[in-house]
Amino acid sequence: MTDYAEILYEVEGAVATITLNRPEALNALTSLTQAEVRHALAASERDAAVIGTVLTGAGRGFCSGVDMNALGKMSEAGRLLSDRYEHLQAEAGNPDADPNYQGSPTYFLGLRKPLVAAVNGVCAGLGFSYATFCDMRFMDREARIVSSFAPRGLVAEHGTSWMLPRLVGPSNALDILWSSRRIEAEEAHRMGWANRLCEPGQAAQTAQAYLRSLAGTSAPYSLMMMKKQVWRHLSRELGDAMGETSRWIEESLARADFKEGVASFVERRPPRFAKLQVE
Amino acid sequence: MTDYAEILYEVEGAVATITLNRPEALNALTSLTQAEVRHALAASERDAAVIGTVLTGAGRGFCSGVDMNALGKMSEAGRLLSDRYEHLQAEAGNPDADPNYQGSPTYFLGLRKPLVAAVNGVCAGLGFSYATFCDMRFMDREARIVSSFAPRGLVAEHGTSWMLPRLVGPSNALDILWSSRRIEAEEAHRMGWANRLCEPGQAAQTAQAYLRSLAGTSAPYSLMMMKKQVWRHLSRELGDAMGETSRWIEESLARADFKEGVASFVERRPPRFAKLQVE
Amino acid sequence: MTDYAEILYEVEGAVATITLNRPEALNALTSLTQAEVRHALAASERDAAVIGTVLTGAGRGFCSGVDMNALGKMSEAGRLLSDRYEHLQAEAGNPDADPNYQGSPTYFLGLRKPLVAAVNGVCAGLGFSYATFCDMRFMDREARIVSSFAPRGLVAEHGTSWMLPRLVGPSNALDILWSSRRIEAEEAHRMGWANRLCEPGQAAQTAQAYLRSLAGTSAPYSLMMMKKQVWRHLSRELGDAMGETSRWIEESLARADFKEGVASFVERRPPRFAKLQVE
Repeated sequence: MTDYAEILYEVEGAVATITLNRPEALNALTSLTQAEVRHALAASERDAAVIGTVLTGAGRGFCSGVDMNALGKMSEAGRLLSDRYEHLQAEAGNPDADPNYQGSPTYFLGLRKPLVAAVNGVCAGLGFSYATFCDMRFMDREARIVSSFAPRGLVAEHGTSWMLPRLVGPSNALDILWSSRRIEAEEAHRMGWANRLCEPGQAAQTAQAYLRSLAGTSAPYSLMMMKKQVWRHLSRELGDAMGETSRWIEESLARADFKEGVASFVERRPPRFAKLQVE
Repeated sequence: MTDYAEILYEVEGAVATITLNRPEALNALTSLTQAEVRHALAASERDAAVIGTVLTGAGRGFCSGVDMNALGKMSEAGRLLSDRYEHLQAEAGNPDADPNYQGSPTYFLGLRKPLVAAVNGVCAGLGFSYATFCDMRFMDREARIVSSFAPRGLVAEHGTSWMLPRLVGPSNALDILWSSRRIEAEEAHRMGWANRLCEPGQAAQTAQAYLRSLAGTSAPYSLMMMKKQVWRHLSRELGDAMGETSRWIEESLARADFKEGVASFVERRPPRFAKLQVE
Repeated sequence: MTDYAEILYEVEGAVATITLNRPEALNALTSLTQAEVRHALAASERDAAVIGTVLTGAGRGFCSGVDMNALGKMSEAGRLLSDRYEHLQAEAGNPDADPNYQGSPTYFLGLRKPLVAAVNGVCAGLGFSYATFCDMRFMDREARIVSSFAPRGLVAEHGTSWMLPRLVGPSNALDILWSSRRIEAEEAHRMGWANRLCEPGQAAQTAQAYLRSLAGTSAPYSLMMMKKQVWRHLSRELGDAMGETSRWIEESLARADFKEGVASFVERRPPRFAKLQVE
């Protein structure tokens, strides 16, 4: 298992966990951290034992944004490492990846496995964008989100102007972006940003338990296809969405997973689905 | 009135009700049931007395999905009947129908009258898709929804990957599809899938009362046009939506319904609007 | 400051307020009122001191819709005035304006500053459309919304068939449009139409306080760009949205506002951002 400097990467059973691990800086993101996250996500894609990944932070924060101190200091070594990771990522690349998902953190949407944010504490700026592009968000009741762009004189960065309105509607998106106010978990949940509220300190393990439950019930192939369908079909007309779905239904009906799904249902036992083999 | 084998079709006043009627199988859908539903919907479209239709289930379930037992047994007679129904449907077809609404249950969106699901109990698989493609969902507080695709190794079927994110957002859609967990009415309402929570046993009559109230206040022509506008304009830019709306406004201002709408308002009496005559 | 006949236009500090001012008619909109609103919005765009505008109503209503009495009586003088305002608007026109925002009230989306509705009371018909096209809605707990089109035999007017489903989802939009029932603030908030519930009589001042707080924290340039991004990117694919955002990020990083944003953050003091100079 790769040794990372700024994140932890652990696989327990079917669940991978990436922990942003610079708690003294509230897990502010350096270029190295970002490259390590990308590398770890590529590893979790290739690991057939993994059904999905939790992204969380060490200590009392999730992620406070881009590391301002590191902005100037990004070392040559770090840049080389980052390039190496890009290369690695390219090797593990999804041949099927949608051209819409080439940026960061928008590449999260092109992953073939679920990525769930466990928002354990403050979640700001680029950290807020990271959580926003995860497939779901499990949020500590005491955590808060802050967009952080308008107080720096910036525009809505990292794809948030596209994604936020699709999670919370355009008016709540403007409120979050314009005011950059701290939004409590309760309100984030009411708006639709947080999918689950978790008791203090429980976000990561609740998200892990959720992915573990998926491993017990759902075909990894189904998870992959559904992720692809849902994100793609946001920008398709219904007829086009139905058209490509028809082909995928044909394919899925011919797979062993379907036989196993029906058999396990009839025999009232847990299914044993094929692992996802990613080239 | 046509005699159906697997559904009940009743018209009371302005409201048609289609009841999936195989309670011993939790109203699991055979090909025959599906053809009968389509036929009954065509009948309700042609019946000028009808303002809209409620879709519900007999007994304690709404619909448990595709009938697995019937999958193999679909009789030649049934297939012929189904073909006959297709023919009937074609005859009663909406010349104006959007090519996006040619599948099933996506054709629900092309109907010219409101279709409201009264989700009286378990609602799973294809039954879940049926309810998801109705214009609105009235849900019994004790009912539950289950998507059912991932535990069979399937992809998101019947257009749910397109429609669900438009009702509950992409992250809740993934949660519903991935986990296939039972979602209680309260949560379905919070997510935006259920539009009304109804006291136990009251979903059908609450939905019927809602349609009856529309018959008392709203022009059938307006209901038809609004349904068309709302579903079409999900995939249009604002300028295009405004453009075609302008033409429709011109038309509506020239109709007798507008005169009656203004007159009944001024005279403080209920309006008497033209019935919808569908060729 | 222009003297208006049917609205009040006041600027206090950074906040402009437009008050529909025919309380005896529940602020029903004549052609003159509409032209005056447009003129006042152009004035608030050109006034560099203004960060954003509140739209509210005098007396106990927000706006009851189009003035039915005035429909026939629209004077030649009024029409000329209206033409003059169009001309003025054209002069102050946003060279950058999206062709999708040429109608009324859809032009609200093309404004370069936030427009917040303070829905202080009954909000119906065209008044409902006005509020629906504001960027956010602050709603008095005792206010109500009514769409009003279907009881007149009309289609969904003024862009509501496009905008409503983006605020509340397609099924709630149909419910609001079809039934034209009175929807209480609590339900409007739950659906996502109202962004804030305000204590009785407090909607306008709460909305003003919100805009004042934006003036203290956020760059006017950021507010303008974010408004543009959010509304545009509703109809873009993610890749296209990211593409144009990249260019805007480059631009914003080169601006003095970014330097000031970082400096004020480091120095822990309120930022002093450039006013928005609109040609």
